[in-house]
Amino acid sequence: MNREQALEIVNEQLTDHRYQHTIGVMNSAIELAERFGADVKKAEMAAIFHDYAKFHPKEEMKACIIAKDMPSDLLEYNSELWHAPVGAYLVETKVGITDCEILEAIRYHTSGRANMSLLEKVVYLADYIEPGRHFPGVEEVRELAQRDLDEALIQAVKNSILFLMKKNQSVYPLTLTMYNDLVMNRKG
Amino acid sequence: MNREQALEIVNEQLTDHRYQHTIGVMNSAIELAERFGADVKKAEMAAIFHDYAKFHPKEEMKACIIAKDMPSDLLEYNSELWHAPVGAYLVETKVGITDCEILEAIRYHTSGRANMSLLEKVVYLADYIEPGRHFPGVEEVRELAQRDLDEALIQAVKNSILFLMKKNQSVYPLTLTMYNDLVMNRKG
Repeated sequence: MNREQALEIVNEQLTDHRYQHTIGVMNSAIELAERFGADVKKAEMAAIFHDYAKFHPKEEMKACIIAKDMPSDLLEYNSELWHAPVGAYLVETKVGITDCEILEAIRYHTSGRANMSLLEKVVYLADYIEPGRHFPGVEEVRELAQRDLDEALIQAVKNSILFLMKKNQSVYPLTLTMYNDLVMNRKG
Repeated sequence: MNREQALEIVNEQLTDHRYQHTIGVMNSAIELAERFGADVKKAEMAAIFHDYAKFHPKEEMKACIIAKDMPSDLLEYNSELWHAPVGAYLVETKVGITDCEILEAIRYHTSGRANMSLLEKVVYLADYIEPGRHFPGVEEVRELAQRDLDEALIQAVKNSILFLMKKNQSVYPLTLTMYNDLVMNRKG
């Protein structure tokens, strides 16, 4: 599948605004993949499809999480997390992408996890820093992303956790394991 | 065992500074127990013994965690966490206190956990707000503690997590479960 075909498929699933975000994530993911040595083609595909399930009905996502035996604790946490694993499932079964690395990058692009692959890191970070993002702290992460993938990710996941905590919202445990793993394994 | 006997026992284990902190925690724990309906006598005892193992040699604490089958992930995280479960063990086996509620309050006074008992909450919070504490944010928690135990705990555990994250230090997963449990179960 080439870029145009892939974009056509996701375009049908997304609002205009979310489609523009997807284009931004695609461009950022390609740039990060080139900079840090990830597979550029896989980064492009994972980025294009990362939000495939973003506007999938909540009840269907919930049913999919239960039926497909995804981690059931997802249901106790913010439903914003659901589109990532459900998206990975739909991209595999409906779109027909079977590459595990791409599917894992989609699956963990919102929660993160410990021991993220290079591709997972690239997609997570691209989603955070794409040019359409304008929240506080994003510029600092963009600067870190120029030179150090893990430092940029630490700052990004920290910002995300602090953002949730400021609003007294729960934090999915996997997100903390991403942070812990990165800070415990940082160089220097 | 009365207060004086208990204080005499911990005094031998602590520096002067840490003993003064313990007196502060004891007074705060009694006050909080009276305010929120916890067992005042148990709060006093748990507070007196909460830091019993604070100056126990690190290698011995490590050996104890392994030998007594305490959660082994403790060893991957900050050693500041170790004195709490090791303290609970020593207070039971060396001092002879067998009350489970007191021992659990000692065990979880640093990490916290989900589903904390009223006594655990009182000791955790007393340790945070006792008059000798002077870190940023403590005054806000003291004010919350005048009227709402859980709100005070949410602010305290949030401050603790943010403090660690500012220094890029790891956060023990149980501490996040304490936060999540409190925010998911708050009233209103």
